Amino acid sequence: MTDHIRPVPLDKAYRLLNHGPTVLVSSHFDGVDNVMAAAWACALDFAPPKLTVVLDKATRTRELVEASGRFVVQVPTAALLNLTNEVGKRSLAHHPDKLQQAGIGLLRLSGGTLPFVDGCSAWLECALVPEPHNQQTYDLFIGEVVAAWADDRVFRDGHWQFDSAGPEWRSIHHVAGGHFYAIGEAMHARERADE
Amino acid sequence: MTDHIRPVPLDKAYRLLNHGPTVLVSSHFDGVDNVMAAAWACALDFAPPKLTVVLDKATRTRELVEASGRFVVQVPTAALLNLTNEVGKRSLAHHPDKLQQAGIGLLRLSGGTLPFVDGCSAWLECALVPEPHNQQTYDLFIGEVVAAWADDRVFRDGHWQFDSAGPEWRSIHHVAGGHFYAIGEAMHARERADE
Repeated sequence: MTDHIRPVPLDKAYRLLNHGPTVLVSSHFDGVDNVMAAAWACALDFAPPKLTVVLDKATRTRELVEASGRFVVQVPTAALLNLTNEVGKRSLAHHPDKLQQAGIGLLRLSGGTLPFVDGCSAWLECALVPEPHNQQTYDLFIGEVVAAWADDRVFRDGHWQFDSAGPEWRSIHHVAGGHFYAIGEAMHARERADE
Repeated sequence: MTDHIRPVPLDKAYRLLNHGPTVLVSSHFDGVDNVMAAAWACALDFAPPKLTVVLDKATRTRELVEASGRFVVQVPTAALLNLTNEVGKRSLAHHPDKLQQAGIGLLRLSGGTLPFVDGCSAWLECALVPEPHNQQTYDLFIGEVVAAWADDRVFRDGHWQFDSAGPEWRSIHHVAGGHFYAIGEAMHARERADE
């Protein structure tokens, strides 16, 4: 179902991550696709949009990112809770059929070899901004967002639509082990008269 | 009401940020306290626990952090929605009475001059890990968490208790403008028999 996938203007891309969801990180190099879960991903800049993500040295995805210089950060939905938990626990090194076992479908939204996880609510295609000291010392990777998409059933006109989309569209926020929280209700702060 | 504030073991401190809440960053130098809001804060490591936070060059808090080498990252609750939005929009440079206007109460949990915002659910006291290149190029600051506390009405035994605490205790997750989402319901991923 790619009919609902729409480009997101780059100046709105930060909104896809701003509320702190747990994400999936995917990459590809030399015929190998992989997907991992990451709770430690965060917006870093508005224009051009950048983000940070922590990729442990034990992950195969890190190797693919370092080799290809490209990766995708995407926002899984509550419907992908088990899938997200499974790709976060299993390494491709020990489970060569990890993606099939987790039931992951891959799209090639950008037209190249980069894999995008089907069923997510939003996708940020990133070019690695090489920072060897950060990568080696902190496992911290910086990506510049070069393109973004979202499913218009849950993000449109530059805004998340969690209140009107079904509960299966909620972003998920990892705490520890298999424990997550779904994002909840919208709240709007008071506007002061002197502003 | 500090009766409910309990130390959190450092090996559990990452859980206070893992679900991606918007935070308040406070600091102190030379008699000046300040507090700002930051949606771009993220866990970076487990042991010792570290975190990242983006501090724009226009913020007064950044000056205090760079001068003192210390700051607090704390998790505001839904009850602090308006306060969080206000300290995120106003700079101490233009609003010298910013903290009073927002109705912020400060605690000195660590016994020194560092200010901790009253009414939050969790507090992480950080020592700046100086990385001048990251700070200058990306506005990206790294802190090592040297102590942590939480209010036992919403975080205890190493776990968030959002389901049993009242809705006023929910963490808040900023999207844009005055728009936030509260954290929602707990979700537990399936455990597979082969694990």
